[in-house]
Amino acid sequence: MDISAVNALSYEDFVNIFGNVVEKCPLITAAVWTSRPFIGLNALEAAINEFIDALPESGKEGILRCHPDLAGRDLHGGALTRESREEQRRAGLDALSSAEASRMARLNEEYKERFGFPFVICARMNDKASILCELSERCQNERAAERARGIAEVKKICRLRLQGLVLPDAPNKL
Amino acid sequence: MDISAVNALSYEDFVNIFGNVVEKCPLITAAVWTSRPFIGLNALEAAINEFIDALPESGKEGILRCHPDLAGRDLHGGALTRESREEQRRAGLDALSSAEASRMARLNEEYKERFGFPFVICARMNDKASILCELSERCQNERAAERARGIAEVKKICRLRLQGLVLPDAPNKL
Repeated sequence: MDISAVNALSYEDFVNIFGNVVEKCPLITAAVWTSRPFIGLNALEAAINEFIDALPESGKEGILRCHPDLAGRDLHGGALTRESREEQRRAGLDALSSAEASRMARLNEEYKERFGFPFVICARMNDKASILCELSERCQNERAAERARGIAEVKKICRLRLQGLVLPDAPNKL
Repeated sequence: MDISAVNALSYEDFVNIFGNVVEKCPLITAAVWTSRPFIGLNALEAAINEFIDALPESGKEGILRCHPDLAGRDLHGGALTRESREEQRRAGLDALSSAEASRMARLNEEYKERFGFPFVICARMNDKASILCELSERCQNERAAERARGIAEVKKICRLRLQGLVLPDAPNKL
């Protein structure tokens, strides 16, 4: 779909198609429909990022809390969104060894206990080894730094999901 | 569940239980978990309302756009959330006459065309006759007034959903 087709969508179709570019937060997609028309994919992405940045810190934590654990119960229980399932599968998180699965589960719990929100990372830009490494390291961070880092990862995930739905901007739009 | 049980919930359980008190907006529920402990049901409701009020106007429109049409395709297609299905059923919206259904569909389209978000009303405080009457009248309003009115209805819906989940405050907490 090119950006003119995006701009022609009703809010209902827009939310149906783009509602999960930020995981389980169709509110954000539905809000940025107000800003259409978008001059390109980058402008749509920027509108989403600006909306996120304008939220209070509690709202940013709320976004993180709408994300599933990596290799967690939603993956094993079949409860992931389509996008998240595919991203976790590509990173190899559906095929962890027993030792890797135990370590991931322990670190996820440690992270959530420490911060009150889940570890979020753009799985498509990582593999299971780098995810385990990052998770272990990021458990040591301060809460505010981790909130900001998690939101930066949310934006990377969002960009890749958008790129899967909308044709890239022509060079003269960049 | 009493409020001390609510305050003892992990964010995951809190979002699982309360994630749809604002229709399809678990982000809001997940955000207010940051404000726990709540001294009572009224404090939890107030935290949700304050979060909504602090959103930009586009965010309030986003909340409205996450709501289904009344007696619309999601009702007939079985795609409503559990809460919304029950509320629409109680208001008699699953048993409209052919003439009522046509009128509702026509007015819903007119409303959405005019405002860019759907007509939202607390179905549990209305019946099909009052809903049709309100829908017809509210189509005549200004956009800003309708956005505010829709959000006021969102808060009524939220209050009733919360009351179905949490025991009322003791009189000395009111």
